[in-house]
Amino acid sequence: MITLPGEDRDLRAADEHPDRADRVRRALAAVLPEGALVTTPASVERYSHDEAEWAPYAPALAVVRPRTAEQVQAVVRVCLEHGVPLVPRGAGTGLSGGANATAASVVVSLEAMDAVLEINTVERYAVVQPGVINDDLRAAVAEQGLWYPPDPASSPWSTLGGNVATNAGGVCCVKYGVTGDYVLGLQVVTGTGELVRVGRKTAKGVAGYDLTALLVGSEGTLGVVTEITVRLRPARPPEQTVVGHFASLVSAGEAVAAVTRSGVVPSALELLDRHCLRAVDDWKHLGLEADAAAILLARVDSPGVAGDAEAETIRAAFDEGGAVWSARSEDPQEAEALFAARRLAYPALERLGPVLTEDVCVPLGAVPAMLASIEDVAARYDVHIANLAHAGDGNLHPLLITPPGDEAARARAQAAFEEIHATALALGGTVTGEHGVGLLKRGGLVAEVAPAVIAMHHAIRVALDPAGILNPGKVVAEPEQEV
Amino acid sequence: MITLPGEDRDLRAADEHPDRADRVRRALAAVLPEGALVTTPASVERYSHDEAEWAPYAPALAVVRPRTAEQVQAVVRVCLEHGVPLVPRGAGTGLSGGANATAASVVVSLEAMDAVLEINTVERYAVVQPGVINDDLRAAVAEQGLWYPPDPASSPWSTLGGNVATNAGGVCCVKYGVTGDYVLGLQVVTGTGELVRVGRKTAKGVAGYDLTALLVGSEGTLGVVTEITVRLRPARPPEQTVVGHFASLVSAGEAVAAVTRSGVVPSALELLDRHCLRAVDDWKHLGLEADAAAILLARVDSPGVAGDAEAETIRAAFDEGGAVWSARSEDPQEAEALFAARRLAYPALERLGPVLTEDVCVPLGAVPAMLASIEDVAARYDVHIANLAHAGDGNLHPLLITPPGDEAARARAQAAFEEIHATALALGGTVTGEHGVGLLKRGGLVAEVAPAVIAMHHAIRVALDPAGILNPGKVVAEPEQEV
Repeated sequence: MITLPGEDRDLRAADEHPDRADRVRRALAAVLPEGALVTTPASVERYSHDEAEWAPYAPALAVVRPRTAEQVQAVVRVCLEHGVPLVPRGAGTGLSGGANATAASVVVSLEAMDAVLEINTVERYAVVQPGVINDDLRAAVAEQGLWYPPDPASSPWSTLGGNVATNAGGVCCVKYGVTGDYVLGLQVVTGTGELVRVGRKTAKGVAGYDLTALLVGSEGTLGVVTEITVRLRPARPPEQTVVGHFASLVSAGEAVAAVTRSGVVPSALELLDRHCLRAVDDWKHLGLEADAAAILLARVDSPGVAGDAEAETIRAAFDEGGAVWSARSEDPQEAEALFAARRLAYPALERLGPVLTEDVCVPLGAVPAMLASIEDVAARYDVHIANLAHAGDGNLHPLLITPPGDEAARARAQAAFEEIHATALALGGTVTGEHGVGLLKRGGLVAEVAPAVIAMHHAIRVALDPAGILNPGKVVAEPEQEV
Repeated sequence: MITLPGEDRDLRAADEHPDRADRVRRALAAVLPEGALVTTPASVERYSHDEAEWAPYAPALAVVRPRTAEQVQAVVRVCLEHGVPLVPRGAGTGLSGGANATAASVVVSLEAMDAVLEINTVERYAVVQPGVINDDLRAAVAEQGLWYPPDPASSPWSTLGGNVATNAGGVCCVKYGVTGDYVLGLQVVTGTGELVRVGRKTAKGVAGYDLTALLVGSEGTLGVVTEITVRLRPARPPEQTVVGHFASLVSAGEAVAAVTRSGVVPSALELLDRHCLRAVDDWKHLGLEADAAAILLARVDSPGVAGDAEAETIRAAFDEGGAVWSARSEDPQEAEALFAARRLAYPALERLGPVLTEDVCVPLGAVPAMLASIEDVAARYDVHIANLAHAGDGNLHPLLITPPGDEAARARAQAAFEEIHATALALGGTVTGEHGVGLLKRGGLVAEVAPAVIAMHHAIRVALDPAGILNPGKVVAEPEQEV
């Protein structure tokens, strides 16, 4: 099981060392403007965890809301001086506990650094502060005829800083790649308190190690991101939507494999099962049919007749997989409602009880086997599992939902969670496709990679954060805490 | 100026420590099969440098040609045990000296590990050994209806291992990205002699730090790559070619900026000046016209009428930039001859004298200014500079050619080289777009990034290669040797 970092440290909960806590708070207040330091317990509590309901957290010593990179740097230096860990966070929509506070830590919320600093239409890049909301950036660049593709389901709420920290995926990655594919450069405060720039603004560049790629997805353990330069694409043609209804999860999985074999790369290929559709409809009354065991939603975005041909190929692949009904959606409003249901599935299911979120990613050919195994696990462990998936990437999100307060169900869900990890690895997959390791998948990471690779993680971490203050215990546990 | 690593070490040229050299050779022979150890001076000399004629090198102690990952691991362990540096290399087509031998080093040639191990048409990836030639992989996957995009001009000769080590670019990167965008996973022998796998075979994955991206482009300083998994794309439609002739380099640069503004992303946008055309034609007699000061070669690959529209937009952009002549090439043979000239330009110019190769990459809007500055530098320093460029990326290759044996011309060329670096940085660019730092751009890297970023490089290097045996002195100089 997971132990929370900080439990074995000198520096326990703030109350146990009131003098030290006060000294740190005073030092933070001295380097921050009015209102940027939050210490009231109720407010601190709100900033102390992300959306991973199953991940532990501990009370932070303080929350800071810096407005400039120099203020972030000053905060890191205070933490270095006082030997206090810091936990960077964006909007807190993470699903692995990566932004959860550790005991007596300083939570660094980047939400107030929310300016789009530059949109360059000639070079096609944007420079943003880490607190910019994903959808806000997308809207801002769309006004200039440009497109920022990465679109996690959390895009109305999550920040670019959080997207970078987790290397967030999304619906259109199946054709256009993930956050890391768009990050050209970063400004970062390092573990030694330096404010540096890595990466570039040019189309290409290989001057030195790819520190940008190393920092993307490092979940705040190798530096605190204070500015992000992202590559943009020209706006794309309107998408067409194809819908398929399936009598079983496995036949939907067969249809995904058929799409892949067809050679057409869709711009979205999403799966929702009946539990997801029902939960969204009970909440939002969108008039969704939940007769099918699962639906697949595909989109294509090639222009003109090429797009028509692609849509038809995908519809045929759905039929080949055993669709009970398939159609190209001619009604943009209906198509939009279906994709809205996809985005709302997670919050809709959260209303039913604490959700433990899987994020396994398997080879496309293994999607039917993985879905069959999930159904089997749900039955054997008597756990309610709803399925949604970026099916075209093989990235599945079985959501394990337990009745509030039912500890026995919780224990069964934990065992089911671990069996799903093990099956994904046996099928050649990974324990996390896009949510990150955080706290919930530390054991999964150890199961996935060799001990020598874990040792490389530790070595890099010590190299870039010699004082061990950057989000300790996340991604890889402290060596003595290895799970 | 550049000092060669190893000069200040205990372990000097092999001859100075004959006992030690013999011990190392005997230890290597003991772990390698017959014929995999090369020690005759003439053969060792051939493996001791790449194509960067201006970069220094020193005699290696031995060359090894392992056939398996386990043999590579055994060689690394011998080097660790005896404290001997090792220099990994592929085909030796590098242009920065990254594969140049250091004194009394062991050169590890991966050329004999040349098997394509797997082509997976469902998941669209290939697994290859590092010695596979780029064009051979491209041909093998094409037979399965798939495409490996990265296409450096060296593709008929360079290996995937070398492409990974330098994060090689190429002609189609302008639309499809560079080598690193296609590397999913690696098998690597680490600096501590472990044989590990990093990365994945799935479409997505964020389990732990992106060690794959860190290793790509690290020029053999963080590990020796023994296997590569690359992402593939479906085969694409045939390309169309657009050609423009320009009366000056700068007007060709203006046309590049006009293409960018048009919003069309070409699948190639290459520039050759009259020196390149003339050198290729003198050598290969392709019947190329060298009347224009420069030509631009563009390709588009959208299917059907969309492709027609893109080609026409690019032709119009060429005219907007001031083309004296522009046309869509209807003759595939003519188009192929032009792109063959692009690939042959470098070897054709090498016939004229030692070539010092620039690799600056600047923002697209700065391409005209950069080209103007290069012309000015050529005149002021009295240096013969030929220009070829991945113009659509802003990645320019001014080639500084000096008469053999003319030391004064060589000194002028070195000064011109450094001024071109400085100008590229002043325009917001980088000193190396795709060739890597090696030895020739170590000073450029120090000029490009902050001292704290150089310190991050050293820290990561010490973390992953604590004994300092992996290609020492490349990319970043030893701290005491900082240029």
